Amino acid sequence: MAPVVKTFDYLVIGGGSGGLASARRAAEFGKKCAVLEEARWGGTCVNVGCVPKKIMFNTAMHSEFIHDHKHYGFDVEVKGFSWGKVKAARDAYIKRLNGIYESNLEKSKVEKIVGHATFTDDGYVEVNGEKITAEHIMIATGGKPMVPSIPGGEHAITSDGFFELEDLPKKVVVVGAGYIAVELAGIFNALGSDTSICIRYDQVLRNFDGMISHTLTSELENSGMKVCRRTQVTKVTKESNGTLTLDLNTGGQMKDVNCLLWAIGRVPNTNNLGLEKVGIKTDSKGNIVVDEFQNTNVSKRYALGDVCGKALLTPVAIAAGRKLAHRLFDNKPDWKLDYDNIPTVVFSHPPIGTIGLTQEEAEQKYGAADIKIYSSTFVPMYYAMTEHKLKCSMKLICFKSQNEKVIGLFMLEQGCYEMLQGFFVAIVMGAVLPSLAPYFCSAPP
Amino acid sequence: MAPVVKTFDYLVIGGGSGGLASARRAAEFGKKCAVLEEARWGGTCVNVGCVPKKIMFNTAMHSEFIHDHKHYGFDVEVKGFSWGKVKAARDAYIKRLNGIYESNLEKSKVEKIVGHATFTDDGYVEVNGEKITAEHIMIATGGKPMVPSIPGGEHAITSDGFFELEDLPKKVVVVGAGYIAVELAGIFNALGSDTSICIRYDQVLRNFDGMISHTLTSELENSGMKVCRRTQVTKVTKESNGTLTLDLNTGGQMKDVNCLLWAIGRVPNTNNLGLEKVGIKTDSKGNIVVDEFQNTNVSKRYALGDVCGKALLTPVAIAAGRKLAHRLFDNKPDWKLDYDNIPTVVFSHPPIGTIGLTQEEAEQKYGAADIKIYSSTFVPMYYAMTEHKLKCSMKLICFKSQNEKVIGLFMLEQGCYEMLQGFFVAIVMGAVLPSLAPYFCSAPP
Repeated sequence: MAPVVKTFDYLVIGGGSGGLASARRAAEFGKKCAVLEEARWGGTCVNVGCVPKKIMFNTAMHSEFIHDHKHYGFDVEVKGFSWGKVKAARDAYIKRLNGIYESNLEKSKVEKIVGHATFTDDGYVEVNGEKITAEHIMIATGGKPMVPSIPGGEHAITSDGFFELEDLPKKVVVVGAGYIAVELAGIFNALGSDTSICIRYDQVLRNFDGMISHTLTSELENSGMKVCRRTQVTKVTKESNGTLTLDLNTGGQMKDVNCLLWAIGRVPNTNNLGLEKVGIKTDSKGNIVVDEFQNTNVSKRYALGDVCGKALLTPVAIAAGRKLAHRLFDNKPDWKLDYDNIPTVVFSHPPIGTIGLTQEEAEQKYGAADIKIYSSTFVPMYYAMTEHKLKCSMKLICFKSQNEKVIGLFMLEQGCYEMLQGFFVAIVMGAVLPSLAPYFCSAPP
Repeated sequence: MAPVVKTFDYLVIGGGSGGLASARRAAEFGKKCAVLEEARWGGTCVNVGCVPKKIMFNTAMHSEFIHDHKHYGFDVEVKGFSWGKVKAARDAYIKRLNGIYESNLEKSKVEKIVGHATFTDDGYVEVNGEKITAEHIMIATGGKPMVPSIPGGEHAITSDGFFELEDLPKKVVVVGAGYIAVELAGIFNALGSDTSICIRYDQVLRNFDGMISHTLTSELENSGMKVCRRTQVTKVTKESNGTLTLDLNTGGQMKDVNCLLWAIGRVPNTNNLGLEKVGIKTDSKGNIVVDEFQNTNVSKRYALGDVCGKALLTPVAIAAGRKLAHRLFDNKPDWKLDYDNIPTVVFSHPPIGTIGLTQEEAEQKYGAADIKIYSSTFVPMYYAMTEHKLKCSMKLICFKSQNEKVIGLFMLEQGCYEMLQGFFVAIVMGAVLPSLAPYFCSAPP
């Protein structure tokens, strides 16, 4: 058995957004902290999530502007697009960020340990053949894309593979109806791939407010994407020319596909951690079960972020990680993250901003009679000059009994990702309709 | 003397944003209303203000994106830019808006009267040789650009003339340091004019928070604009080749100027209204003097919008006009517009958003010791890929004694015009620092 070589006050397994934020905050309180990471610093967000995705969203935005140049007076000839050039610059930027994360850990005096961690039968953490431990251990190992088991499934990629693509594929099929599916399909489509999205039912983003699902599904089709409803891929065959042939549940086939991408969900990174050896409970999907304070069922063992399977969002993990550090080491015994009212943005085309309850949720919670809906659909002034017009939608869900307090806000609009934050603050402060209404009327007249 | 042909409950002189909004709201309460307009429906905002300016801002934004295309992987050749094409499309759009304003008046059953109005000695309003009157008369005739009296001054244009330009001028000099000056100079510069801005002192936007003035002045220079400090044009000579030679107070000259634009302020449209005949008071600059309820010194005679010289902003005039209609005709005797805390956006490059007190104003009002400043300067992720980096700045002014209540917010950033509104609602609701702080930290790490 390996000897115990190091003991910490706080050991974090997983160097993603949540783990790093929590460890650094704990170190501010003078605690001896370490973070274990087996891959790249920064986790999903920095390496295969928000950051490279936003860069690709911006790339797609350039493509969209190019289509409108002529309507704004510019005579422009597009001679080419190099996905590879964007990838190289993006990879270099992310490498810089990895370095910044590392050096921030050093500045914070948090010890970095590189290697795969597993719990041992006697409750330690083993990494690189050494045993370490800490009074408080937090697991923030994140998640990874789900892959279905179908014949030939290995020929597909996931969002991880999206960021490894060296070229823009000519013909793409994205399977999935969630936010990752619409974001990545939107990027492919805007950049010129022949793009299809296969969804299980009739609309994308079915967990979102109905207005959002409905409008985005129709805007995807307006933008030239093929939305294949009630369509699942049942078998993948790689042809001798390298293209894929997809057998579908509908009996049909899709041929000459250059890239098949699964975006059907994410699973937690809880395999090979040895959780069972120390008795940390996971649910049927493998997510670590925690209470509202991020406690697992084992004393002084915590988990947060994507590995818990709830609100898979970087700022949520960061906030939960910091709150936990304050609770454990800063004498703030009641601090915990409020998982209600989390604002989210989907970088679809057009992008979506959401806060609070959907109409469906609100009606279920308070009864339809006590819910009042205000909604508006309009074409922003930007499109006054362009051929392709994008309809934008806004929707406010108000609770009648409380002076029409705003309990939900949904936006589908260019720039809504900038609009969301301030309204979120107002809504959390208890904004009622009269204070928000002027901002959700269209411009004069 | 002309006979009195018509009597109304509410007569509005001036068919701009404020006048139209007030008349239509009054009509909703069943009042017999009329609006008098001598030029185009919609006033400054629609015809020579916000609307065409925003279209030109969007045009300039296209130009800025073109510069970045190569950094986002696109190989693009710009073969030309046609200002004339943009102008034609813009003019057509504005004509459509004029029509919408007119038909909205018709739908609201507000009578339209086209012609120049003057008060008569006996208290009536004369227009097109006819006399009309109303129990309540409101003046919302707006304003126009100020023009200095210097030799050759007639060879320059103002913002009105900007919207009549048929081509992008090669070499432009904008005189002025206010928001109109920086907006129009920014458009010229982004579209490729050789652009100079002559300012009276050392920084643009001197009435804004110091951080904004300072940062914008330096960003203008970074973007290639020539900022001529402490420089005034004293004489303009039109040369035989059509270009202008400008004599400067510094003793120097500027030659080969194709367009000289005054943006040195605005004056109210109070001449030729016959205000003196009915005793309506104006101040030394000609602005109509009103109290907080928009009352002039003459009973049942009101004024609002730019003609009062305060907060020259479309939404302010609209809100004041509607409040007045409610006060007069909807039994809301206390309704008036709160002129504090008006959020404003300047469509400079980069744009600026402001709410509340500047640091200077806050320190003067509450004492420097009771003010706490939070500020942040960063390069947004968009510029991770580009050569030209734009620094963005945020600043919060907080009142220490009131739990760090936010009393001022200043942003200089791409997209801040979308961010402003929600934060404005939160600030008016009394937001304190802890609720806003998370949104003014830069992204992880």
